Amino acid sequence: MANILILGAGVMGTALSVPAADNGHSVRLIGTPLDQQIIAALKRPGGVHPKLDDPLPANVEPIDIEELDARHVEEADAVIIGVSSPGIEWVFAQLDALIDDPRPLGFVTKGLVAGPAGVSTYAEAVPESLAAVPRDLFIGIGGPCIARELANRRPTASIYACRDRGRAEELSHLMQTGYYRLETTDDATGVEACAALKNFYAIGVSAMQTGYPDLVRPGAQTRNPTAAAFSQATREMALICGQFGGQPATAFDLAGVGDLHVTVGGGRNSRLGHGLGAGRRVSEIMGVELAGETVEGIDTARALSGWISRGIETGRLKAAELPLALAIVNAIVDDAPFDFDFGLMGRS
Amino acid sequence: MANILILGAGVMGTALSVPAADNGHSVRLIGTPLDQQIIAALKRPGGVHPKLDDPLPANVEPIDIEELDARHVEEADAVIIGVSSPGIEWVFAQLDALIDDPRPLGFVTKGLVAGPAGVSTYAEAVPESLAAVPRDLFIGIGGPCIARELANRRPTASIYACRDRGRAEELSHLMQTGYYRLETTDDATGVEACAALKNFYAIGVSAMQTGYPDLVRPGAQTRNPTAAAFSQATREMALICGQFGGQPATAFDLAGVGDLHVTVGGGRNSRLGHGLGAGRRVSEIMGVELAGETVEGIDTARALSGWISRGIETGRLKAAELPLALAIVNAIVDDAPFDFDFGLMGRS
Repeated sequence: MANILILGAGVMGTALSVPAADNGHSVRLIGTPLDQQIIAALKRPGGVHPKLDDPLPANVEPIDIEELDARHVEEADAVIIGVSSPGIEWVFAQLDALIDDPRPLGFVTKGLVAGPAGVSTYAEAVPESLAAVPRDLFIGIGGPCIARELANRRPTASIYACRDRGRAEELSHLMQTGYYRLETTDDATGVEACAALKNFYAIGVSAMQTGYPDLVRPGAQTRNPTAAAFSQATREMALICGQFGGQPATAFDLAGVGDLHVTVGGGRNSRLGHGLGAGRRVSEIMGVELAGETVEGIDTARALSGWISRGIETGRLKAAELPLALAIVNAIVDDAPFDFDFGLMGRS
Repeated sequence: MANILILGAGVMGTALSVPAADNGHSVRLIGTPLDQQIIAALKRPGGVHPKLDDPLPANVEPIDIEELDARHVEEADAVIIGVSSPGIEWVFAQLDALIDDPRPLGFVTKGLVAGPAGVSTYAEAVPESLAAVPRDLFIGIGGPCIARELANRRPTASIYACRDRGRAEELSHLMQTGYYRLETTDDATGVEACAALKNFYAIGVSAMQTGYPDLVRPGAQTRNPTAAAFSQATREMALICGQFGGQPATAFDLAGVGDLHVTVGGGRNSRLGHGLGAGRRVSEIMGVELAGETVEGIDTARALSGWISRGIETGRLKAAELPLALAIVNAIVDDAPFDFDFGLMGRS
């Protein structure tokens, strides 16, 4: 049995403790400074994560950030970074302080970073100072995975990606259960690109779920526009994935199609899309029903915006191949009405 | 402007008359012997198709099968076969009698035929006697397209496929409108395979929508299993598509991913899946809520059953690559409970 350290006690970090614990491993679940109430709740007898349904297995040890010491990290056979994107800077700082010897690092944080040299995924944007965490130990985790369902042991499949595929195999061996099925790939770039892109595209696809009401049946929605946009999103994800140096085919599997499917129709990115489809603007939606929430697709849109513009200017990208991305970027960056022109699909 | 003849006045044949008419073409909509009440309804002033919402444009002429004469066919620049699978034999007989000169044939009928030499799509199973209809005039139509939504001019995108891609281009030029966006491909085999397979896989994916209820919230469903199965279905469609001699990539676009998306969660194949997911058997569901209905995925399952078995026996296929297909086939052919084992996904 192994020791697994999970950094971040949000829903995803906490949910990942369940298959790890079900496999008999000792799991240490470390809260960030923002997770102190969660850790306190988990420490109570029979305590439950405020956003999950059931107590965690007995072999999951909740640990407050104040209690974290070097021994916890030294004893870990694998570390899983389970924070969402606002926590990523904190995690990088912790890693720098905590990790002396390189070890496998599972990574669920999804996002893109725009820098002077272009756009990169979080795993690729790890500060150079983190010499103890070489990128070929980063194992990106993609695929359809609503955390609460995983914590409830409902079945799904995910994909673990590492440049050194053997590392992904090792971690998947520790984590796979009957309900959490794991594949591996060496296309870390592709899986992490898709993990970020699917939040972004879920905004646009979900907008179709409210943007084209049935003309006859009150309250009903049409379904062709959503399906056509889903297909377009898949195609565009594959194109961007390839441009990032990943494999386009990664977008057609669990990390792309699978994760986009589960992200459309539920969650914060989708709710933003539903508001946009109803003709509202991002600023309004973010000021009302999503006030205070992190919508990761917004950050991805901002990171992609300049990259797409420069790509079109230099001929590396064609606007005609990314109509859905451009419509989403425009709505978010310019706080404009979402306007996807179906006339940009099909023959010109 | 062109003359377009549509054979079959069911919802799909009738819906296709709308973009054709909106482009200014003269459209003749020919009912089959089963469509006589529909044609009678459409002929009344302001008449509406019983399953659609609005009257057809004035340049659509409904024609009863009894009125059909050779002139209608001679004057047609293009013919669209708009019947569903039970009408396909009737259509082939009509074509034999009606068509002297070859002309482009759009084809929406979706299905597979099992024969001694293997499985083929309907377009490939055209009787040899139909010399006037060479296969390189068959234009398969795929992509997400609920007929009622098309008739209501709600946007979608479809793909027209012909071995001679120029023929697909010609027909798409006649049919494309602002709301009906058309792409073309020469992968006729792939598009027609996907058009049949998506009905089949929609049964299995839809079963996930009822098979894994939320354990805590009464009436709510989980979403990870559906997304994981959707991704698995996409992968298997690509594999089968390639085995049929089509391009696997066709499954990742409008004819595969797009059409599967719209077929899951609505329609008869999906309703069968919902029943299966709830633990019922095909015979029971077909005897109750789907009594008298044609569920095209059932015929596809029967056609695939022997082909998959023989493929596994001969080593051409691996059971481990088609777990979802095997689960669907088993439920349909053996009238057994639907049992997709998620343990067959992921590492073995």
